[in-house]
Amino acid sequence: MARPVIARAQMRAAQKEGCDYVSHGCTGKGNDQVRFELAFYTIQPSIKIIAPWRDPKFFNRFKGRNDLLDYAAQTDIPVTSTKAKPWSMDANLAHCSYEAGILENPDQTPPDDMWTMTDDPIKAPNEPLDITISFEKGIPTKLVIPQKTLTDSVQLFKELNHIGKIHGIGRIDIVENRYLGLKSRGCYDSPAMTILRLAHLDLEGLVLDAQVRSLRDQFVTHNWTIYLYNGMYFSPEREFVENTLLFSQKRVNGEVRLRCYKGSVYVLGRSSATEKLYSEEEASMDSLDNFSPEDTTGFIGIQSIRLKKYGLQKAEEGESLSRA
Amino acid sequence: MARPVIARAQMRAAQKEGCDYVSHGCTGKGNDQVRFELAFYTIQPSIKIIAPWRDPKFFNRFKGRNDLLDYAAQTDIPVTSTKAKPWSMDANLAHCSYEAGILENPDQTPPDDMWTMTDDPIKAPNEPLDITISFEKGIPTKLVIPQKTLTDSVQLFKELNHIGKIHGIGRIDIVENRYLGLKSRGCYDSPAMTILRLAHLDLEGLVLDAQVRSLRDQFVTHNWTIYLYNGMYFSPEREFVENTLLFSQKRVNGEVRLRCYKGSVYVLGRSSATEKLYSEEEASMDSLDNFSPEDTTGFIGIQSIRLKKYGLQKAEEGESLSRA
Amino acid sequence: MARPVIARAQMRAAQKEGCDYVSHGCTGKGNDQVRFELAFYTIQPSIKIIAPWRDPKFFNRFKGRNDLLDYAAQTDIPVTSTKAKPWSMDANLAHCSYEAGILENPDQTPPDDMWTMTDDPIKAPNEPLDITISFEKGIPTKLVIPQKTLTDSVQLFKELNHIGKIHGIGRIDIVENRYLGLKSRGCYDSPAMTILRLAHLDLEGLVLDAQVRSLRDQFVTHNWTIYLYNGMYFSPEREFVENTLLFSQKRVNGEVRLRCYKGSVYVLGRSSATEKLYSEEEASMDSLDNFSPEDTTGFIGIQSIRLKKYGLQKAEEGESLSRA
Amino acid sequence: MARPVIARAQMRAAQKEGCDYVSHGCTGKGNDQVRFELAFYTIQPSIKIIAPWRDPKFFNRFKGRNDLLDYAAQTDIPVTSTKAKPWSMDANLAHCSYEAGILENPDQTPPDDMWTMTDDPIKAPNEPLDITISFEKGIPTKLVIPQKTLTDSVQLFKELNHIGKIHGIGRIDIVENRYLGLKSRGCYDSPAMTILRLAHLDLEGLVLDAQVRSLRDQFVTHNWTIYLYNGMYFSPEREFVENTLLFSQKRVNGEVRLRCYKGSVYVLGRSSATEKLYSEEEASMDSLDNFSPEDTTGFIGIQSIRLKKYGLQKAEEGESLSRA
Repeated sequence: MARPVIARAQMRAAQKEGCDYVSHGCTGKGNDQVRFELAFYTIQPSIKIIAPWRDPKFFNRFKGRNDLLDYAAQTDIPVTSTKAKPWSMDANLAHCSYEAGILENPDQTPPDDMWTMTDDPIKAPNEPLDITISFEKGIPTKLVIPQKTLTDSVQLFKELNHIGKIHGIGRIDIVENRYLGLKSRGCYDSPAMTILRLAHLDLEGLVLDAQVRSLRDQFVTHNWTIYLYNGMYFSPEREFVENTLLFSQKRVNGEVRLRCYKGSVYVLGRSSATEKLYSEEEASMDSLDNFSPEDTTGFIGIQSIRLKKYGLQKAEEGESLSRA
Repeated sequence: MARPVIARAQMRAAQKEGCDYVSHGCTGKGNDQVRFELAFYTIQPSIKIIAPWRDPKFFNRFKGRNDLLDYAAQTDIPVTSTKAKPWSMDANLAHCSYEAGILENPDQTPPDDMWTMTDDPIKAPNEPLDITISFEKGIPTKLVIPQKTLTDSVQLFKELNHIGKIHGIGRIDIVENRYLGLKSRGCYDSPAMTILRLAHLDLEGLVLDAQVRSLRDQFVTHNWTIYLYNGMYFSPEREFVENTLLFSQKRVNGEVRLRCYKGSVYVLGRSSATEKLYSEEEASMDSLDNFSPEDTTGFIGIQSIRLKKYGLQKAEEGESLSRA
Repeated sequence: MARPVIARAQMRAAQKEGCDYVSHGCTGKGNDQVRFELAFYTIQPSIKIIAPWRDPKFFNRFKGRNDLLDYAAQTDIPVTSTKAKPWSMDANLAHCSYEAGILENPDQTPPDDMWTMTDDPIKAPNEPLDITISFEKGIPTKLVIPQKTLTDSVQLFKELNHIGKIHGIGRIDIVENRYLGLKSRGCYDSPAMTILRLAHLDLEGLVLDAQVRSLRDQFVTHNWTIYLYNGMYFSPEREFVENTLLFSQKRVNGEVRLRCYKGSVYVLGRSSATEKLYSEEEASMDSLDNFSPEDTTGFIGIQSIRLKKYGLQKAEEGESLSRA
Repeated sequence: MARPVIARAQMRAAQKEGCDYVSHGCTGKGNDQVRFELAFYTIQPSIKIIAPWRDPKFFNRFKGRNDLLDYAAQTDIPVTSTKAKPWSMDANLAHCSYEAGILENPDQTPPDDMWTMTDDPIKAPNEPLDITISFEKGIPTKLVIPQKTLTDSVQLFKELNHIGKIHGIGRIDIVENRYLGLKSRGCYDSPAMTILRLAHLDLEGLVLDAQVRSLRDQFVTHNWTIYLYNGMYFSPEREFVENTLLFSQKRVNGEVRLRCYKGSVYVLGRSSATEKLYSEEEASMDSLDNFSPEDTTGFIGIQSIRLKKYGLQKAEEGESLSRA
């Protein structure tokens, strides 16, 4: 989500200053150039873009990051990427990403000193930390930790980043598929997001209707992810699924109790003061109140009509379903 | 997957013995009755089923599990569920499930002595264990641990269960949506499956084409899961997606190095001797061989045609995309 | 859509009268019983339902429609279904459906005197009729025919039914899949809906963004249809996709010119005074204004990165893609 | 489908001749350039492509089709597109497409002499023609018309083109979304395909399982269409859905009787000698053999559990579902 925010801020500044051109420093093979430029063009279709990494004058002089590191060294420009830390980093509130350099070998385990937003789980405290996160309409609105309670969304998020860092939560190492069609290896540490994602999905289990959840998972989540990754944040399709996403969250109210420990988050329990789709009474295996067991016989009987046809078809084909 | 296997074995026995009726002990509110009976009916459409829990003569005498526990106690029938361990359990090679009893309160943290297939992560070894799993056509075919190498699929799976148990890997606690329309809370520990799932998804990242992976995720995985959960293992739709699933795995060959530690599994690296979709050279941010940066300009330019239209539409509506 | 409307009216009456029970005359094998009863239960969860066709006292006396026809004859009850017209009919503003009786043989061509809402195309006028339908936010708001202009939605719909009847438009004959798992053959004539559907889809082509249209087609249309057919009109999932559907229609403004002739409707042209996604200038093959042909080279070049990998993989497998 | 076939033939020739370069005459704004070039690159990743319409030397001299028509006139090059017929055409066995020129105005009705593969329905015979098409595994294998029976697939297809031409079947006029992001208006006449599509879908209704059909519609058909349109015929994703498509057709065996008349095709009936999913006996509303009406009560009762929750939730929100 950082790219759309940055692109918006950059274009706001460009519009304020009356710029005809904007620029960025993204490489010519990555995702970020696509994300920034599509955002720039959509926000202001008349804007022109200067992309040095795709300009022969530039890329013929600097073949890659090493050339730039040399140039930075020669000209005393401070950079985070160094030959001692041969990868690129990109950090924001939500995560820090690491790619390129030695990480381009997908079998190379990232060195321990690479991760900046998470401590090594092995060095994490031996004592777990139990926390509680409350959600209203799917948005985290309260974080309770032993020492304090936070309700400001930014403070809450930063605190979760802090907790996640200490407990080593949120390290991701994957091979992903860049929009340009190249596979690339990326590492990310994203403490607060990892904790919030687990809590949010868990609460949805309690309060979302099964069919709505299924639709949300298959269509909204799947597509939203693709749009964001491919730089289609400012697009008709993102606006379309966003509307659906917001609608799905109207009832996502409640709280989740979690345990943070050595790289993991565990759900300890969840509850909702307002939502009632879950009924302990009805779910109970020890109660038949308001439930007719005979109904299930009919339910299964009807479902079996179509399946018996399939069984007969298989038998006719000489295939015995009772054999593996 | 246990239900289809059991149902098949049961029907094989029933057919061998020439039975007209089969039975099962599932409750009248759960998923398992549906899974067994749909399997029975599909395998042999003429079979008749006796389901005591849906027979008034039975359920009017025994209102729930407590009545049955009393009866078992009176009649010296040994059972795993006790009043001291007030939940039901169901174990097989893949997992042990826990539900009902005190777990029916979704905010009740499971007691530590409930879990049978995983040790408490807090009590797990302080030393991580690094392992390597190899896959051929998506099937795990080799497990290398410091002491030994396993290639028999059952042995390999059991060893992963053992490793996962010791390191506390694979505890799941969720509110799920039973096929009958009731929400219910279920806990599962599933060590080997948790380790294998992570390794398998990771390897797919390296070797599966992006679009195929996306289709597999959105349609095959989503639907297969629903079919299995809802008792549609023996069905035309499962056979249909199974064919697709197998096709997707033809190239899933390679190995994944993993670290097991205190409840978590981490990917350390992955490689494939045979698959070449990942190219370190091509992905490299430090190389422009076989890559024309100008192409990206065109790629973005074309993508922006449609998006600029959207931007102009928004502007006309008086909505500024550069404002949040 | 008729079932939800009827169910709502019936429940409104039942609630006004303080009824504990409602009833319906649907058979025990069809879809309508499901649609009515799920609607009844959702609207008022405490309602009780009397379904004679599933009551042994009733169905043991009357085995099927023939027994009822006999009973109706004996007791002078007027019915539309007769032994001379051996099928059942169900008509509303949107369509008339025909099923059962001789239609149960799916290879039996419906007799010509079966259809009630459409004349035989062979007997339709030899002169085509040209009409224009306007839409606002996807809703038809104006119908212009040579003789008059209609803007009232019901009048407009009835007029389209009339036009469609005369010109023989909207006959459908299919084998469908009842929710209970049985295949059944149904015939429908639905003149206004057929004309409106074509016009609406055509206008969407002009004014809807390509990606939004694709999402609408794949998820919204597909699922909405299933929900309606299976009696899930009053459901969380229908409400969920309804929200999405309405959102998709905000820009569906414009008009479509159509020709009705001998069983068919043809689009003659379409336009929108307000929507501008279609640009004659930009689409033109005779203009390169605001278009850089070189961009396409880059667009294709980038797309080919992933596909070349596939080509190399195939070659390595010994499969030549240039051979069929 | 014509593009992949042509691209394959062209590359076969290029490979035979040892060419380093291939070329095509597609414009720089259309779909065909993408289809051809992606196919070329995938079939032979090392191939180089000359695309005059994207070469400044070319497009600066010839701004569009008019310039080319002038040049063709000056140099006596014969072309089908003329100033009297100001649109472009592209014909193959499956269809003829018409676009550009006067058609770029989406409200311009195509002139009657534009269509080449279909006669005007108004001029079509006053007598309908009844035909029968048989399918094996989804492939049309026999066409019976009053005069003769055809079993050769090409002959059969040509005969359907002939029948469709005479009866004016298969005219399509739409606004489509080019892969480049532009909307464009296209007209097509496609007689044989139109007849076969209706027959094929109808037969699937009779013989395909409901769930398999639903998956096929939502995922396979939807995606296959996109891949083909966007030039992804030779791609991993097309191969992936192709496998699924073929699997879905194993049981699509049977025949469909059709009536061709004045621009339309109507299904008269369908049957299958081998497939048995449709059972007249079971579907019958006049028989309760092998059917327990009480089962439906249970089926509905179980389905209502979740929906009643929704009804209660709505009531709690103060929304009455019995009000529109």
